[in-house]
Order: sequence, then C-alpha cells, then structure tokens
Amino acid sequence: MAMRDWIEAKKAGKALSDADIRAFVAGVTDGSIEDAQIGAWLMAVCWRGMTTEETTTLTQAMIASGRTLEWSGVPGSRVDKHSTGGVGDKISLPLLPAVAACGGQVPMISGRALGHTGGTLDKLESIPRFRTDLALDALIAQTKRLGGAFGAATDDLAPADRRLYRLRDATATVASIPLITASILSKKAAEGLDGLVLDVKCGGGAFLSGRDDARNLALSLINTAERLGLKSVALLTDMSQPLGRTIGNALEIAESIDVLKGQGPDDVVGLVIEQGGEMLVLCGAAPDLDAGRRKIAAALSDGSALAAFRRIVEAQGGDVGVLDDPGRLPRAKHTQRFVAEEPGFVRGFDCRALGIVATKLGAGREAQNDRVLPGVGLVLSKKVGDPIAKGEPWVEAHFDDAARLDAVKDTLTQAISISKRRTFPGPLVLERIPGQRWRL
Amino acid sequence: MAMRDWIEAKKAGKALSDADIRAFVAGVTDGSIEDAQIGAWLMAVCWRGMTTEETTTLTQAMIASGRTLEWSGVPGSRVDKHSTGGVGDKISLPLLPAVAACGGQVPMISGRALGHTGGTLDKLESIPRFRTDLALDALIAQTKRLGGAFGAATDDLAPADRRLYRLRDATATVASIPLITASILSKKAAEGLDGLVLDVKCGGGAFLSGRDDARNLALSLINTAERLGLKSVALLTDMSQPLGRTIGNALEIAESIDVLKGQGPDDVVGLVIEQGGEMLVLCGAAPDLDAGRRKIAAALSDGSALAAFRRIVEAQGGDVGVLDDPGRLPRAKHTQRFVAEEPGFVRGFDCRALGIVATKLGAGREAQNDRVLPGVGLVLSKKVGDPIAKGEPWVEAHFDDAARLDAVKDTLTQAISISKRRTFPGPLVLERIPGQRWRL
Repeated sequence: MAMRDWIEAKKAGKALSDADIRAFVAGVTDGSIEDAQIGAWLMAVCWRGMTTEETTTLTQAMIASGRTLEWSGVPGSRVDKHSTGGVGDKISLPLLPAVAACGGQVPMISGRALGHTGGTLDKLESIPRFRTDLALDALIAQTKRLGGAFGAATDDLAPADRRLYRLRDATATVASIPLITASILSKKAAEGLDGLVLDVKCGGGAFLSGRDDARNLALSLINTAERLGLKSVALLTDMSQPLGRTIGNALEIAESIDVLKGQGPDDVVGLVIEQGGEMLVLCGAAPDLDAGRRKIAAALSDGSALAAFRRIVEAQGGDVGVLDDPGRLPRAKHTQRFVAEEPGFVRGFDCRALGIVATKLGAGREAQNDRVLPGVGLVLSKKVGDPIAKGEPWVEAHFDDAARLDAVKDTLTQAISISKRRTFPGPLVLERIPGQRWRL
Repeated sequence: MAMRDWIEAKKAGKALSDADIRAFVAGVTDGSIEDAQIGAWLMAVCWRGMTTEETTTLTQAMIASGRTLEWSGVPGSRVDKHSTGGVGDKISLPLLPAVAACGGQVPMISGRALGHTGGTLDKLESIPRFRTDLALDALIAQTKRLGGAFGAATDDLAPADRRLYRLRDATATVASIPLITASILSKKAAEGLDGLVLDVKCGGGAFLSGRDDARNLALSLINTAERLGLKSVALLTDMSQPLGRTIGNALEIAESIDVLKGQGPDDVVGLVIEQGGEMLVLCGAAPDLDAGRRKIAAALSDGSALAAFRRIVEAQGGDVGVLDDPGRLPRAKHTQRFVAEEPGFVRGFDCRALGIVATKLGAGREAQNDRVLPGVGLVLSKKVGDPIAKGEPWVEAHFDDAARLDAVKDTLTQAISISKRRTFPGPLVLERIPGQRWRL
C-alpha cells in the first residue's frame, strides 16, 4: 500500500519525504516491493525528476543498504575517479597506479562493459590470471600496502543499487539524472572516500551526448556528493572521438602500458595528468592543481607509475610479464584494415558507432551473459584533424569471427567522415566544475 | 530487447505501431515480458498518453488475447452497458432483466468491488446460492433462452487485461484514459456485442471526478468502440451523491427488487429507464429513445422485468424466495443511526467517503483476498435537498463488527453537509454523447 502511495506522489510531481525514500530503498533491498512497482516508480522519476534533497536521501539510503569500507585509523586520504563512460576510455588503468605512485590511496571499484562502452574490469581481466574479485577486506589491505587496488562491486556493497541498476536497464529508465547520480555515488561513497573526481563525458560517444545534459549531470553529481560530505570536482570532457587509438580490452591494456612507460597518445596522457592532478589535490598529496599535474607527469616519465602498476598486477595474481612483453596479451585471430575512400583530413568519427562495432566484435556484451572476447577491437591509425590519402588505412579491426565482422562492416566504413579542409580538434577538458566546499 | 525499445519510444512521446502493440500484448499474455517492464510502460502511457489508433489496436490485441463470444446464427442483437463505477450504483441489477423483458439480449460480464465502489458480482452473490461463475457457453445459452445472464470474466476472456489490470492496480497507473478504455472495451467487446451504453460517472464518488476528465474518457470510449465496430452511446451521469438510498451488497439487492416491482428511488428508476431506453434503440427493439424509455418503464410497472429477473435468478441457482421476501437476504448483525448535528437542508455528501466507509465495514475489499460481508453497508434516509431537523437520523450503518464501525465513525459523521438554504439537486444525466456512426 505504501509503495502505491509513493508511486502516486511521484507521478503527481511531488517530492518524497526522507522517511518515504528510506522505506522505499529498504523495500527494494529486502524484496518486499515488487518489480512492477519499481518499474513504474523509475519511469515516474524519469518523468518528474527528483530534488537534490531527494537524490541525496536516495543515495544515502542506497549506501546504507550495504557495507561501507572502513578506513578509521588509516593515515592519509582516499580518492577515486568515476567516468560516466565513453569509447576507448582506458584512463583508470594508468591513472590509479600514477596516483598511487604519488602517495594517493585509490580503492577503486569499477564496472563492466555497458552498452557501447567498455568496462575497466573486462579490460583488466584480459591480463592473464588477473583477478578482480577481491573481497572488500583484501581491497582495503592492498590499498593500504600498495596505494590502490582494482576491485569489483560485491553483493554486500550497495545491494539496493544492484537491483535498481538491473531494473533501470530492463525498463529503459537509465537516462535519468537523479537515478544516474544515486547509482554512481552510492557505489563510490561506499568506498569510504574523502574525494572524488567525476569525469562527465559529452559528445557522440557519451551516454548523454548534449553539453547541457552533461553539465546538469555534473552539477547533480557535485551537489549530491557535497551533501554526502565528499569533496569533489567534475570535468566535462570531450567524447566526440575515441580516447587514444584503441578500443577493446587487451588492446587498451597495451595502450595503457605505453602511457605508463611515458609514451602513449596525447589525449590519454593529458587526461591522466588532468584527473590525476585533481585527485592529488583532493587527497592533500599536492598543494595545487599545477603541482598535482607535475607530480603525475613525473610519475609517468620516471617509471614510478609503471612500478606501482607492476606491484598491483602482481598482487592481484596477473601476469606481470605483459608489462615487458605486451605480446603475451590475448590477440584476436584476424585483423583487417579499412581505408579512406577519398583524400582529405579526418573531420570526425561516429564515436558511438565505433563503440557499437567493438561491442559487436565481442569487446562488450549484447546480452547479460555474453562472454567478452579479450583480444578483439579496433585500432585507429588516424584521429580528428589528421591528413589522409585515398586508400590509406584509418582503422584496423581485430576479430575472431568473420561473420561478426561482416555484420558490422557497413557501420564501420561509415563511421569516419573526411573533408577537404582541415578540422582542428577541440579541447579535451571542456569545463571544470569544482564542488562548492572545495571552492571556498 | 524489443520491449525496451517500446518503453523508450513511449517515454519519448512517440506513438507505437500496430505491430509493436500487438507484439507487446502477446508478450504480456504469454509472460515473456517481465513485470518491471510492464510497470514502466504503464507509467510512460500515463505520462505521454496514446492516440485513438494506438488505443484501438491495444484494445483489439487484448480482445484477441482470449476468446470472444460467438453469436453467429443467433437472431437479434446483443447489447450491454458499462458503468465506470460509483457509490450505490446498482443500475445493472434491474436494468438487465428490464431490457431482457423488452426483447433485448444482454450477455453481461461484470466485475467485483473495486476501490471505494461496489461490484455487481458481489451484490448478486448476496442472494443465497446465486452462482456467477458461468462457463461462457452457459452464458450464451442462458442469454438465448432468457434474454440475459450475469457472468464473470473467465480466464480465457481477455487474459492480457487480467495481467495488466492487476499491475495497473499495483503501480498506481489506473487513472489513464487509454488504459481504462482498453480495459473496459476489451472485456465488453469480447462479449460479441452489437451495441454498448457507457455510463461515465462524474462527481465526488467517481474515479475521475472532474467533468472534463469524464468527458474525455467518454469520448475515448465512444471513439474506440466505434472503430471496433460497436455502436455506442455514452451518458455522463452525476455521482455527487450515492445512487438510491443503499450502499452494500444485500442492501442494494433489496433496493433493486423494489425497482423491479415498480417502486424504488427516483434516481435509480430514472437511470434504468434512460440506459435501458438507449439499449433498446441500439439493439433495434425500439425505434427511438422515447419509445425505448416507455417500454422499459412499462416493464418495471407491469411486472415483466421482475418476472425476467426471477427466471434469471432461478437459472443461476439463486434463492428466488428473496424476490417475495427480501428478509431472506443476509443481514448485518447490528445497526446504528447517525443524526444531524444542526437543522437545515442536506447540501451534499462526501460521496467517496461514504463508499470508503461501506468498503471498510466489509461491503468491499481492502486487500485482494478479503472476504466481502454480504449484509453490511449504509442506508441513507436523506438525499440532497431534503430538509433535516437537528437530531434527526440521516444514515443507518449496518455492521457486523463494532470495531470496524468505530474506525470509520468520524469519517461517516463528516460525510454530510447541511446548510440553512435549500440546495436543489442537479440533473442525473449531465450529457449524452452518441457515437459517430450512430449519429448518422
């Protein structure tokens, strides 16, 4: 009966009280509220929205539905980053060891491939024997010892979010700013963080492509995080073309190792420095953003970030040999290059389409129980603004199954646009939105 | 995957194609669409609405999800009425035998108490041994033989509506005009009717109290019915005070028998004549509305409607003795009168509150599996406009359980308003909206 009243109230555009929201989350967690009612409530939230107060209470109740990492007595501060998801977004992989090498502590809990975007856990698992299923206590212990760990959400972490996440996916109610905010922050806040960098993607390869939507999501995340007592800063970053040159699990690990060796593409290195600098300031390991940036850049060039990654891979059971010989990573059975049909300059990519192509080749999942193929994906040899000759290759598809490539060939060939005049790529960080407390 | 697309489209305010709606209803019927998705879809329909084309296809698909009564080769036309539900609305009980006595055929499939309103089946079952669980073939046979039958929806009649109805109730998505339209018409059209009178209630005791909402519902019903090939007419009727003087199952049966004996309250008799007249015109048993009205009035005064009811009660196993001695009907254990606290004229009632009081005394159900108490309810001794003295009784509660009466006493005493000046009740039929084809 109560649930029906909460649906009715939200349907009428009213704000729910703290007590109602807490009782709702309790019913989601213990299973006493039925799926149909949750589906209707989620759609009513898409329709009517939620106030920042409601979103905060929802997030708090979702955190309280499970366990929270306990850091009392552990010196230092914990920081993390969250990306709203993009194509070729491997930033977390070099970022965590770089921040750890600079004295930060990063107990990172990541997700798997979602929609047209990849997942940090799937990427890491392409390193032979790498284990992401750490118990929360092991995650804490490794973070204390090595400055960071790559973990997965366990059943006891924000269980309310687990159920809501599955139902949002089934009911096409994912794209709601308060629901996205509560889902992201409930998992991140449960890590017991002091600070959080939010990388909100915008452009064709993001979930919310428009700049205004992305800014509204960033503000919702920041304002809610602040109310949860979490220092935070949001960066709106460009996702109009893939990050780096690789899309796909083992391919992105190899590119991340390049970055940790002081090489790698400018955009990936740039974002690692930008986000890493913010994280160091948030956790007090750098006095200001410029100093933070310099420390991260130094860790990438002096090998200390690579050494931190080596220790972490080893601690999580992975084959550290891949750091010295990326040829040990899984590879797709076949490759095929696609060439430009006209000469000119790369004007842009259909970034979402590239993500979908990689997913369909097996880099992600189309159904929940699909197995990810670690070696498959795309390698771009051109980025926006690059000159290209007619017949010159712009992308190489790595695939296991020719039928899968055939099914996406047309999409792939149409995913590049070439113009006579040169287009210059825009800035990578479009906007920086610091949290209110932080600004003071 | 398809269901997610249909939710997404409706969420974005798009109309669904015929094929999509049919596939949706098939998935509702065979269980392949999960509850959460249906809940979200129902809320998206509340948000965005449906076109008349969509509503028609939805209704057709819901009809096609089950069996339809087959009348080929049976002479004459089948007609029925549907009321959107009110307090003390016992019109169907005298109406069916009156129309049958005038040569109409009424294969009526009715429902049970819902929310604050009573249900025809619950009322009939207060007649000892009366059976409403007729097989559809028995319903057809009795209609041919006696001109009418009172049946209940069986599992094979519009099964898609059964599932949607339960989920609408659970998800607070009942009050949506396209969903109400499809639910009502799918069940009525499955009766294989030629004509249908729609009694759309408006005022405090109705589900949609506002006049505009009621008119919009009437238009949706009429327009959709016409597209289904069903001649129809809608009457917007007043539900600002209960119909007649009784609310409660056996109490309403006794009042209906009075009406069939040519007595009974003016408003009930008036609506039976109005709706019965329309039904006779729709099925060709009267040349015009005035002639139809006169035939129904005659059937009530000459005993032929009562005789038809006697045959029907007997055929359905009920105790026909109640027609001669209403004392054989179940009675509540106790009665208590409530009196006016000031003198004046009855200005109005909180009609919905009176319905809720009767429901809570046991005339309806608060939870799905509650047992209805046949004898309980309310008997009004005053109607709007009547003079009343201080201390004069205006209502008598019939109850089995003193604790239940205690729980509703305050609501009941506040459900009447008295003024110094006399209020005159408005017209019973507020508007008549004939179907388009019918108008030609």
